[in-house]
Amino acid sequence: MDPVVGIDIGGTAIKAGRLGPQGEPQPAAARPTLIENGAADLCDRLADWARELGARAPLGIGVPGVFAPGTRTLVESPNLPALEGCDLRLEVAQRLGWAPECIAIDNDANVAALGEARLGAGRNAGDLAMVTLGTGVGGGFVFGGQIFRGGLGQGAEVGHLFVHDRERCDEPCGCGRWGCLESFASATAAMRRARRAGLTDDLSALCAAAREAPGPARELLVAIGEDLGRGLAQVLVLLDPPTFVIGGGFGAALDTLLPGIRAGIAERDFAQRHPQIVAATLGADAGWIGAACLAQSEGVRAN
Amino acid sequence: MDPVVGIDIGGTAIKAGRLGPQGEPQPAAARPTLIENGAADLCDRLADWARELGARAPLGIGVPGVFAPGTRTLVESPNLPALEGCDLRLEVAQRLGWAPECIAIDNDANVAALGEARLGAGRNAGDLAMVTLGTGVGGGFVFGGQIFRGGLGQGAEVGHLFVHDRERCDEPCGCGRWGCLESFASATAAMRRARRAGLTDDLSALCAAAREAPGPARELLVAIGEDLGRGLAQVLVLLDPPTFVIGGGFGAALDTLLPGIRAGIAERDFAQRHPQIVAATLGADAGWIGAACLAQSEGVRAN
Repeated sequence: MDPVVGIDIGGTAIKAGRLGPQGEPQPAAARPTLIENGAADLCDRLADWARELGARAPLGIGVPGVFAPGTRTLVESPNLPALEGCDLRLEVAQRLGWAPECIAIDNDANVAALGEARLGAGRNAGDLAMVTLGTGVGGGFVFGGQIFRGGLGQGAEVGHLFVHDRERCDEPCGCGRWGCLESFASATAAMRRARRAGLTDDLSALCAAAREAPGPARELLVAIGEDLGRGLAQVLVLLDPPTFVIGGGFGAALDTLLPGIRAGIAERDFAQRHPQIVAATLGADAGWIGAACLAQSEGVRAN
Repeated sequence: MDPVVGIDIGGTAIKAGRLGPQGEPQPAAARPTLIENGAADLCDRLADWARELGARAPLGIGVPGVFAPGTRTLVESPNLPALEGCDLRLEVAQRLGWAPECIAIDNDANVAALGEARLGAGRNAGDLAMVTLGTGVGGGFVFGGQIFRGGLGQGAEVGHLFVHDRERCDEPCGCGRWGCLESFASATAAMRRARRAGLTDDLSALCAAAREAPGPARELLVAIGEDLGRGLAQVLVLLDPPTFVIGGGFGAALDTLLPGIRAGIAERDFAQRHPQIVAATLGADAGWIGAACLAQSEGVRAN
């Protein structure tokens, strides 16, 4: 099997690599996104890099943002606003002399979920929901071995599930609504909650303190876990995945969050399920690996 | 095309009918469920009725309850507890001398959603979520033309989505949790809320009053609609259906609920979507029609 190239475009860095003949990940060194140079320049560099990596169609791309229903045009990308309105797939394909169908493109959270499902923590898990705890809270679903995007393609937004009435919120979510999971359980929210509790907002130190002994750090991480569990319960109610994969930088706190997560699920899930809850294993490589997997599934080969 | 028979088993009545050669619904007169005579007797009568209707494999059955993951055995059926532990598909197939695969069986809410999607309100709508407002609040999803059951088959339980913290609840949900949509927006909940507001708990009269003039009846139905909209917003966040089909007895109040539903979605959906929200059109026939549609999709033909 030819190597398949995957590319994951982040706000500050682009990651890429190849899946080798036996499907083994061969990561390349990351490069800066330099979005300030504009979308056309970025597309030039993406095509050049794909060529350097020996990409042959199909190629996979992950990108943060939301596509217009039924299209591959980004309509919203808070971290890469210069790409809004850009049909990245078409632009890169033209530069490579390919048909657009030779490039498979999706949301970064969706491709990361596919990567973990195929080659990471979910390798033997069947259907799964991935939840990424970073600056925000991202989500991606893999059902029947494929990304599940929902009807118009803007599903799986786990971070904007509602977990509390406004009375229990101290701040609105970045989206402007009140009570979203993201405003309770992202890394950013955890740091804010730690500061309000008079604790360190260094999340590694906070987790270390929680692991060491009972006390306010452990209590806070259990409370954050409970809110996360309240959100996961909603995913269970609608999608019933047997497995959750928890990723993102703050996902490293999973062991300290888990007692709270189980309590939050128990509080809110009518069916009292006990899904597997496991840590992501591909780290920052999940995106490009998943993009390459997406290319294998959905990208059209060149003649 | 041979006529296809569908059967919908309810707590008190069984409905059945045929889809004719052009797919036209031909309902039969309902019969009593008589579950008090036991599961074996019910299976005898189902097989007899299927024969009377000229059923040839495949046959479709809808039944209230939850199946054990990966099986067609009911593990929970609050309205028909005598069927718990029963592999209804196998039992009926044996009586008909068929292989079990010749019978397609699913949850009553799932088959009703498929019926509305194929021959009812969702006929031209593409993907949809159906929400049934009755004694409880049921849900069924149709994506890509097929029932979407979620990972282990217990998804689409829209009625147990969380819509409020405990502080805003006056009673727990029937499931024992606090804050489920069902405890705010089922017909039962609407009657309770009407009584607490000093209004009639005859829901037809309540809706008539709300349609006639502004006042407490209209305000209550808007408030119930808001809670329903808060639940639908969670469905949008995870599954992004372009269309909701609202059914069940209390679904007849949709016109009075709609302003509230829109407000509830606006309050909770980060993407500020405006999905289509339409009334179901098949009424009490949705279940058997959907069961017959399921048989067409998933049932195995006899040789």
